Amino acid sequence: MKVVLFDSWNELYKRPFGAVNVSATIDFRIDVALPYVSKVELKIHKDGMEEQSFEMNPTQGNAYQVSFQPYAATGLYFYYFKIQQDFDTQTRTTYYFNNHDLHGGEGFFTENYHDMCTYQLTCFQYADKAPEWYQNAVFYHIFVDRFFNADDHVRSPKPDSFIYARSEDTPYYIKNAQGEIVRWEFFGGNLDGITQKLTYLKELGITGLYLSPIFEAKSNHKYDTSDYKKIDPMFGDESILAELIHKAGEMGMRVVLDGVFNHVGEDSVYFNRYGNFDSVGAYQSVDSPYHSWFTFHQFPDQYDAWWGVSNLPVVNKQDADFQRLIYGGSDSVIDYWTSRGIAGWRLDVADELPDAFIGGIRQTLMKYPDRVLIGEVWEDATNKIAYDNRRHYLEGGMLQGVMNYPFRQIIIDLINGSLTAQQAAQKMMALKENYPNEALQANLNNIGTHDTARIFTMLSEDKAKLRLAIYLLMMLPGVPCVYYGDEAGLTGGADPDNRKFYPWGREDADISDFFHAAIRLRNQHEALRKGRYYPFALGPLFGVIRYIDDDNWHLFVMNPTGQEQQVDVTTIYPERDDWRPVLEAANIHETSIAAYGFFFI
Amino acid sequence: MKVVLFDSWNELYKRPFGAVNVSATIDFRIDVALPYVSKVELKIHKDGMEEQSFEMNPTQGNAYQVSFQPYAATGLYFYYFKIQQDFDTQTRTTYYFNNHDLHGGEGFFTENYHDMCTYQLTCFQYADKAPEWYQNAVFYHIFVDRFFNADDHVRSPKPDSFIYARSEDTPYYIKNAQGEIVRWEFFGGNLDGITQKLTYLKELGITGLYLSPIFEAKSNHKYDTSDYKKIDPMFGDESILAELIHKAGEMGMRVVLDGVFNHVGEDSVYFNRYGNFDSVGAYQSVDSPYHSWFTFHQFPDQYDAWWGVSNLPVVNKQDADFQRLIYGGSDSVIDYWTSRGIAGWRLDVADELPDAFIGGIRQTLMKYPDRVLIGEVWEDATNKIAYDNRRHYLEGGMLQGVMNYPFRQIIIDLINGSLTAQQAAQKMMALKENYPNEALQANLNNIGTHDTARIFTMLSEDKAKLRLAIYLLMMLPGVPCVYYGDEAGLTGGADPDNRKFYPWGREDADISDFFHAAIRLRNQHEALRKGRYYPFALGPLFGVIRYIDDDNWHLFVMNPTGQEQQVDVTTIYPERDDWRPVLEAANIHETSIAAYGFFFI
Repeated sequence: MKVVLFDSWNELYKRPFGAVNVSATIDFRIDVALPYVSKVELKIHKDGMEEQSFEMNPTQGNAYQVSFQPYAATGLYFYYFKIQQDFDTQTRTTYYFNNHDLHGGEGFFTENYHDMCTYQLTCFQYADKAPEWYQNAVFYHIFVDRFFNADDHVRSPKPDSFIYARSEDTPYYIKNAQGEIVRWEFFGGNLDGITQKLTYLKELGITGLYLSPIFEAKSNHKYDTSDYKKIDPMFGDESILAELIHKAGEMGMRVVLDGVFNHVGEDSVYFNRYGNFDSVGAYQSVDSPYHSWFTFHQFPDQYDAWWGVSNLPVVNKQDADFQRLIYGGSDSVIDYWTSRGIAGWRLDVADELPDAFIGGIRQTLMKYPDRVLIGEVWEDATNKIAYDNRRHYLEGGMLQGVMNYPFRQIIIDLINGSLTAQQAAQKMMALKENYPNEALQANLNNIGTHDTARIFTMLSEDKAKLRLAIYLLMMLPGVPCVYYGDEAGLTGGADPDNRKFYPWGREDADISDFFHAAIRLRNQHEALRKGRYYPFALGPLFGVIRYIDDDNWHLFVMNPTGQEQQVDVTTIYPERDDWRPVLEAANIHETSIAAYGFFFI
Repeated sequence: MKVVLFDSWNELYKRPFGAVNVSATIDFRIDVALPYVSKVELKIHKDGMEEQSFEMNPTQGNAYQVSFQPYAATGLYFYYFKIQQDFDTQTRTTYYFNNHDLHGGEGFFTENYHDMCTYQLTCFQYADKAPEWYQNAVFYHIFVDRFFNADDHVRSPKPDSFIYARSEDTPYYIKNAQGEIVRWEFFGGNLDGITQKLTYLKELGITGLYLSPIFEAKSNHKYDTSDYKKIDPMFGDESILAELIHKAGEMGMRVVLDGVFNHVGEDSVYFNRYGNFDSVGAYQSVDSPYHSWFTFHQFPDQYDAWWGVSNLPVVNKQDADFQRLIYGGSDSVIDYWTSRGIAGWRLDVADELPDAFIGGIRQTLMKYPDRVLIGEVWEDATNKIAYDNRRHYLEGGMLQGVMNYPFRQIIIDLINGSLTAQQAAQKMMALKENYPNEALQANLNNIGTHDTARIFTMLSEDKAKLRLAIYLLMMLPGVPCVYYGDEAGLTGGADPDNRKFYPWGREDADISDFFHAAIRLRNQHEALRKGRYYPFALGPLFGVIRYIDDDNWHLFVMNPTGQEQQVDVTTIYPERDDWRPVLEAANIHETSIAAYGFFFI
């Protein structure tokens, strides 16, 4: 029995759980079993503002309580508790802080003010629900050059570029002695290649395609856009994209594009460093219509570039002309492609895009029904600070979700043993608490992308471990996204090793089976897509409950250790009582789970 | 009138001219218009031996003469003259030495012994005449990967290699940060590609093909042989080579191969560093049958390699097994391919091959009629010292000729103005004097190869200058060899820029015309192929006479300056009187030649 206790995960102490609508009232309670308590306060400050004090009222037993209403609009609030005891001759001040890992739940009681760790309370403007189809989707992330080539040759090859001799060759960046990429290399995947593989993807259970950038660009990754309104001729053209969208739609799949709006290619209509385009580019003349897009320190050779990479000049997102091109004009880039059937956008390097820019994109996208907007954010997106600014991605009207890299990291660390089950559960709970529930349900979850090492490689090419990762991905809230080729057993470390060509005809049958089976579960069971979610640890075991109602729920318990483990499901203590029937119905008092095995009911 | 005069180019002073058979008698004369001459000596030493003195006898006027017979077998003799005057009270010793440029002809008279510059007298064992077809040939040097691809794809591509995206791409070596080549890149030319272009080559006037190495190897240049008895599958196979030889033969062309016997590839049957071959390679085991071929300083990672390039382990040419494989065995490499119709061999890095090794190859080759053996030597091959050994390439029984890089350098320097016409003529005469005439007629002359910058680039892409170089190449003694693509106007600096793919369909019509016309002249006129040869300067003009008899001769005079020049042909004073009728017949007392123009009669 703790002398002072608060638990942000327990609705006895904080209700409602987690992120709240800014108009909500939140009931805080803290138990203080101390003598001579004269004052208990909720100390809270809106992000960037002065701290406020709310005195808490004693109720039954040792409990103190206060109802709090966010007083300063949406965003983050940070809180802790201050306790004052008046003894005869002196006053003692103590505190209850969030734990040092800042994961929420139970914190700690201390006299030391300098130990301060605050709890986070996320307040959103409105519950920004992603479209129904998206919430139900299983996505497939395609790096277009590396998936499938519909032809027997590489179409419209770039001048002074290289083609891999064989599809099984290992990707390699061709750099000069200064480490700069001097030639791009291609395998030759294209959009009709994807169209030809739609049957395969449908059979795998895929319902959403997230494509790496497809607009004209010099590189193989095409994050260096040359022309926002032209499909790269290596990949296809508008009619080929239309066919892909149409055929995918017939098979129940929608297509999301990668929107790269922070920077363009130096070799582009807009910058035109090499005079390859008919335009007058910003590099060419200060009278260029694109001059105001860029920030030149010394014209023309010194300019702001993404991470200092000179071939990616950064665009000034405050520039009105640029905003009009991307989302503001009547035939903006967002309009142009969305009206052609694109189901949504993933915004590249969202951290580099101002809130207003993202909001503008979203506003344009809202003209089209059932579209989704997600962003590339690598950390907990609810409290991300980028360039000294707190970001407001998920508080309504901007992103509906983000790429969920934290989930990936927890999954890998848990399975590799560098996180205990309890630590993993705590981290999972922290995300659950910080994210608005609608965002948590709309994050694009992954266990690997074009920017990370392959999951099979991260798990030492251990198939049992890989299977755990795949299943866990399918159990978690949010939209699972399979990185092309992971289901075929592709290996690879950091970029470019993670961008091998899909090994058609050389797929690993076991791994393919794992993916097929796990995706099938996800697609079969609504509770896995929409159910409430509770992550937990049971000794060394890690589990997830997904719950809609007593008839629609699932329990997944996995053994991330190398030894067989016994499990008694009845010993799980979820934070809400309505889980209880689930566990009782499970009626699994004692069972065993093999090393790196799991059970699912 | 010089006080003391000797002129090695004038048969009045040295007869016969130039290199001689070891059994010849050479008459030396020197004019000494000095008083009190008591002794004139021809001081001569056989290369590496003690100096000998031959007293010269006074004849008519101031002339002193001696007849000399090489006394110590074939090779080089070096000579000068020593003059002694006995005055009443003292003896004065003076010398007549070769000029400081060592180009022969007139030397200089001095009292200073330390100024010594000797004349070279080349003595050969026998006049090692190249076959008739070869002497008459115009060769075409093909870097196989870069000429023509008979297919629409690259055949049998190497694992982890790159293909150029477009045939017009600029070659680029793919190196790591240490400067080592990590991936090979290919355009995809092959042997059937050459076969398909035989009609083109015939029309150009080509009668000999010299192919870059065609045996299996990892690289695009294939100087890193994997298997001496296998055609690289990217290029073809034995039947494809047979077809090329057969069809070329039908069109009057013979095929010479590049023999690379100094080193092999690390990725080879013999070394097998990566275990890619079924053999037990020298890298793999000290019990390898190939172990004795290589020199390991520390097994297996430290070994002798060509220029320290670890992927080209050097073979010990003294190794009996290796000798048997290359030329000694009944089915040696030389036998294997020569018996299949190869017309000759160009020996790569001849400087690295011991004389006995080259002699062994030649001996094997002599079993087959009409074959030719030439070598890669970059300097004057008659006096080349390699690894502290004087080489005997051209003295009979070894090479019949060498690749004539000195000619190329003189041509370029003359046209670019860094040599005067007189300097160029002197350098030309030096080569004429040093080389046995049969070798001079059998050198493979070039104005560019896979190892040099393109001639058009060397001449600042000036077509008039290029035309001079092309015509001069066709006027000179030896066998002209056109580097593929030079006739199409290819540009390029050092390797790999000089190895662009042949620009099919994008040929420069002017340059193509120059080559066609100049080659036609060569093929039409026997005197250009076999005539005696006299290079000369006429003020700023440079010229060549080719002479068989009074009915078969040609005169070429070129203007390597940027101004129009007048020329009076009758002022040419060749070293032998039998030229005289040529010039009189020409009957061109006064004519003008445009800047970078020429005339040819």
